[in-house]
Formats: sequence, C-alpha cells, structure tokens
Amino acid sequence: MPDPLLPVISLAEVAGGLAELWSPRIVAELNGQAVKVARLQGEFVWHDHRDEDEFFLVLRGRLRLDFETGSVTLEAGQSCVVPRGVRHRPVAAEECWVLLFEPLSTAHTGDVVTPFTRSLADQRGGGPGR
Amino acid sequence: MPDPLLPVISLAEVAGGLAELWSPRIVAELNGQAVKVARLQGEFVWHDHRDEDEFFLVLRGRLRLDFETGSVTLEAGQSCVVPRGVRHRPVAAEECWVLLFEPLSTAHTGDVVTPFTRSLADQRGGGPGR
Repeated sequence: MPDPLLPVISLAEVAGGLAELWSPRIVAELNGQAVKVARLQGEFVWHDHRDEDEFFLVLRGRLRLDFETGSVTLEAGQSCVVPRGVRHRPVAAEECWVLLFEPLSTAHTGDVVTPFTRSLADQRGGGPGR
Repeated sequence: MPDPLLPVISLAEVAGGLAELWSPRIVAELNGQAVKVARLQGEFVWHDHRDEDEFFLVLRGRLRLDFETGSVTLEAGQSCVVPRGVRHRPVAAEECWVLLFEPLSTAHTGDVVTPFTRSLADQRGGGPGR
C-alpha cells in the first residue's frame, strides 16, 4: 500500500507540465532547502546569490552556464554547483529541463528583478505535478 | 574555457565507479547539505533520521522504500522525500543507482551502526569522480 504522506514525484512529468520557461516549480521542501524543476530555453539574466550555493542537474537537453571567467556545459545526467557570490548566466540553445537544489531563501534571479522573476508562492504552484 | 573551480560531475560516471554497494559517495557539498550517489542492491537496514529529511531520486533501476505503514516504489526519474523521524528501509531487488540530498550531518544508517555504516570521510572518498 503506498503511503499517502510520501508522494512519488516524477520529475519529467512535472517539468513537462510546466507552461512557462524559466519558471521553477518546487517539487520538494526539506531541511530548509527546495528541490525544483524548470524548463529553460534561451538566455537567462546574469545574477548571483550572495548567501546561497546552487546545485544544477540537467535532466534533459543541454545547459551552458556562463561565468565571468568562462563557462561549462552540462549534458543530461551532469551536475555542477555554482557557489554563492559567483555571477552566472544559464543559457540553453534548445529546450532543457533541469533539477535545482538550493535553500528556500534563494531568489532565483538573485537581486535582479526581471520579467522572469517568480515568487516562492509562484514556484510552489498548485503543488507538485499539478 | 571551462572554469576549474566549477567541476562538472557526471552522476552515472560516479555511481558506476563505486566499488561497494550501500556506500554513498558525496558528489557535492553546499549550504550544509550533501548531494550523494549510491549503488544499492538487496535490503538495507531499518532506520530513521531524527533531525533530517532525506530526498531520494532514482537514476537507474527501481527502488522500493518500506515504511511501517506501507511502501512506495520509485522508478528511474522518480523521487520521494522521507521526512525526519520516519522509519524506512530501502530495498532494491536488482541493482539501482540513486541520488540523495540530505544534511551533511545525516548518518546514513541513522542511529544504527551496521556493517553498512560509512563515515563522512568514507563518503567523501577520494573526491568526486575518483
């Protein structure tokens, strides 16, 4: 019997159901951290997070992370941590699905408020999978 | 030019390189949390984590999580959070690779010391990918 308190989340199902690009959806909250998925395509804004390190894992497609000193490209199944204070810009030439792991306090566009900026309430959406 | 401070980690490469079952390898540390991968097969010990929630994501294969009230089965790409204090037992009939997010403070066998128990130093191994 599945435990109703322990829902199983299919990450691809959540990502595939996201209507908007660059609009992370929180799929789990634990230990003050959030696990998010997002659909990315195009160039995001340059930003940093003063107090939060950010973990990226590519679920589908390919993601380039630009830094002031260079860039890295993540293929599906590859991950990278962007340390706090490091300015970065995610770029996806084609649609890419990512998993993010970061503190709940993280503003996903850093201190920069842009048309992309989504509140925590927005990111919680209607609940995982909806 | 890739940034040498921002290594790209291929999760399958790390998991595939693990010699031991049930011996998590830390691939990233951030915000007081650890990202780990592990190869699982067979039945683990029943345990809980008093103060830590634990995120499981199946990378390959299938994982059953038994609880006192039931069980859930995660396929590749599916995830689940085991809240703090919930007794659980991971079971993998065939080899399964998982990604874990949990606080660095988490003892992976809870308060139970077993032949499976690995210290944080063990889990840090020789560094990601090695």
